[in-house]
Amino acid sequence: MRVLVLGGDGYLGWPTALHLSDLGHDLAIGDSFVRRTYDHEMGVESLVPIETLRTRVQTWNEYSGRELGVYVIDLQRADEVYGAIRDFQPDTIIHFAEQRAAPYSMIDRSHAVATQVNNVVGTLNLLYAIQELDPSIHLVKLGTMGEYGTPNIDIEEGWLEITHNGRSDRVLFPKRPGSFYHLSKVHDSHNIEFACRAWDLRATDLNQGIVYGQRTAQTALDPRLATRLDYDAIFGTVLNRFIIQAVLGEPLTVYGSGNQTRGIIDIRDTVECLRLTVEHPAARGEYRVFNQLTETMSVAELAKVVAGAYPGEPDVEFVDNPRVESEDHYYHVTHQALVDLGLEPHYLSETLIESMFGIVERYQDRVDRDALIPLVNWRHASNPVRPPSPLHAGDRRSEVHVGPPASR
Amino acid sequence: MRVLVLGGDGYLGWPTALHLSDLGHDLAIGDSFVRRTYDHEMGVESLVPIETLRTRVQTWNEYSGRELGVYVIDLQRADEVYGAIRDFQPDTIIHFAEQRAAPYSMIDRSHAVATQVNNVVGTLNLLYAIQELDPSIHLVKLGTMGEYGTPNIDIEEGWLEITHNGRSDRVLFPKRPGSFYHLSKVHDSHNIEFACRAWDLRATDLNQGIVYGQRTAQTALDPRLATRLDYDAIFGTVLNRFIIQAVLGEPLTVYGSGNQTRGIIDIRDTVECLRLTVEHPAARGEYRVFNQLTETMSVAELAKVVAGAYPGEPDVEFVDNPRVESEDHYYHVTHQALVDLGLEPHYLSETLIESMFGIVERYQDRVDRDALIPLVNWRHASNPVRPPSPLHAGDRRSEVHVGPPASR
Repeated sequence: MRVLVLGGDGYLGWPTALHLSDLGHDLAIGDSFVRRTYDHEMGVESLVPIETLRTRVQTWNEYSGRELGVYVIDLQRADEVYGAIRDFQPDTIIHFAEQRAAPYSMIDRSHAVATQVNNVVGTLNLLYAIQELDPSIHLVKLGTMGEYGTPNIDIEEGWLEITHNGRSDRVLFPKRPGSFYHLSKVHDSHNIEFACRAWDLRATDLNQGIVYGQRTAQTALDPRLATRLDYDAIFGTVLNRFIIQAVLGEPLTVYGSGNQTRGIIDIRDTVECLRLTVEHPAARGEYRVFNQLTETMSVAELAKVVAGAYPGEPDVEFVDNPRVESEDHYYHVTHQALVDLGLEPHYLSETLIESMFGIVERYQDRVDRDALIPLVNWRHASNPVRPPSPLHAGDRRSEVHVGPPASR
Repeated sequence: MRVLVLGGDGYLGWPTALHLSDLGHDLAIGDSFVRRTYDHEMGVESLVPIETLRTRVQTWNEYSGRELGVYVIDLQRADEVYGAIRDFQPDTIIHFAEQRAAPYSMIDRSHAVATQVNNVVGTLNLLYAIQELDPSIHLVKLGTMGEYGTPNIDIEEGWLEITHNGRSDRVLFPKRPGSFYHLSKVHDSHNIEFACRAWDLRATDLNQGIVYGQRTAQTALDPRLATRLDYDAIFGTVLNRFIIQAVLGEPLTVYGSGNQTRGIIDIRDTVECLRLTVEHPAARGEYRVFNQLTETMSVAELAKVVAGAYPGEPDVEFVDNPRVESEDHYYHVTHQALVDLGLEPHYLSETLIESMFGIVERYQDRVDRDALIPLVNWRHASNPVRPPSPLHAGDRRSEVHVGPPASR
């Protein structure tokens, strides 16, 4: 199949493109490099060094004997989106190209607005391009388990059979997202469902859990093929962050009670879920939702697993929760559709965590410990998170509270 | 109370401001005049002539002995929003300031994007301004009954008690909106609910039915106080359009079977609903939804009522439905909250319709019959609706099919 991976220079887009290319599909990548720009803005970088997209692609083409296409496009610019689709003529478009960090969206008004505009407009442009150029294209869109929040009922895969006052209907599963980022994905889901209904498009929305891990069969072939590994408080996801804190000899910082339960998934399963979805497309007019996770675990349990696996057993520290979220809640998620398509999950194991320790140990000199401090508080309309500029470094140091954040 | 009416120069914002001012509240209006700009873009205008906001306000101040504040602001510009709120210090903000026409949002990609960005970003800016400047401000936001679509279950007021696999929760009522405009309001609803939950704001979302009528006690005092009356296929709402078609001796055009059932409300009840909501604010942290309609009726029934009331009984013509919507569906809506607060509804009566006939007859020379033709088809990604320019009038005439639209 011809597959266009938007956001193909990112943490998951890149390994997904290689995985599908390795299996014989014809791949192209679209990216605006905005993810690398966020690094500049926040003054952080991937723990594992990553190459330019040009080098990555050249390396992969040498290893694979294939040719990965590249489109430098911004989904905000419709002409660029239309141009890439006209040129590449994909059967499937995988859409990873969104601002994906909840804390980034909660920095302040302008970051909330930028997140929602970027994500909603990018997806709208894509829907229109598909409708106008080739409505048979299968859109595979990355959503998030965070769209659902933590309802007191079982979470189904996107849709819910509901009975009310003796009558029944199948409705979109009611959402309770916890940040302006998560909200942007809820907005996308509604827009996509409408486009399938009104225009007979086909789409799969992958509501993904928290991804951990950094290596796949393809990215492990050569350091130049590595994907990024984020550990900072804005873009770092919780399990990767715990592993890095363990290696650094820092306490593992759990927000609040740690009883928050979340769905998680190994990066090797993520790329396999994408393959299964691409190879088993939705029908015309179908808006399909898969919950893309393999197990659920509380944040405190995750910390315990990581701490228990690392020599010397690092401390687990409970800090004030900078987010507004339920800390004690019911959590039961259906995640059957991808298993039915053939997914064979990797479960979180000490083996995986130990291999991650090795990666982190290799690059631990690159860590900026300040970047681990959660400076974005959900309750504040404005959070000062910009990196120190040469002129203002002194000012910032006097403001920053080093160590776990005090109660605010 | 001090009430800021955003979109206060529009069809409903203006009469609402006068109604509240008349009752002794301190009122200010915020508007960017974008609604008047849409008229220029579409080459149409209000059937009833409307004065400049300056003349309207001067006239009202003379009649009432009060002083209506005016802020020329665009909600896209956060500094202007913050400035007006800082200056006026409202207790309540009524937010009518959104692009409100489903067909406009379905013209093409750029109108869909413009609608969602305008509505979502405007509301986000407002939420941040309230959170940063005065979180005790009560936000009264105009939603639409179209957010719900036509589910096969009873429609409740915004929230739904749900039981699933033996467990229960209270969730946002699942939505199935029918255009990118309706979707923008769903996005707003989710953003506002989150702001109430995360920031302890207070908000009432008024999911309003289709409004009919043009006169309120205050706007009827003087022609210079009149509010607009739209009849064109983009901004005209169905009942007002039928009345105008009757007066013109044109057939009343019903889209599809006409079995689509909708909630409707008299403009005099709209302004009263706003008063009741403002005077009975939501509690801090509460996201409250009222369904703002007084009765439900099928589109075919509405046409029949109008046709039956006009001398000579005009024809009702069924044309291909340019929208994608269910034409035969269950429809039962709860609309109790505003009645509980004291609303005494006006029901659709021949008296009202007859008084509307008089208004339309007075201004019938102003009608552009071409503007009645529905040129926006939901199934098309791009619809040519721009008005003829002096240079291209000939081209357009040759394209436009005069009379009810042929099947496409």
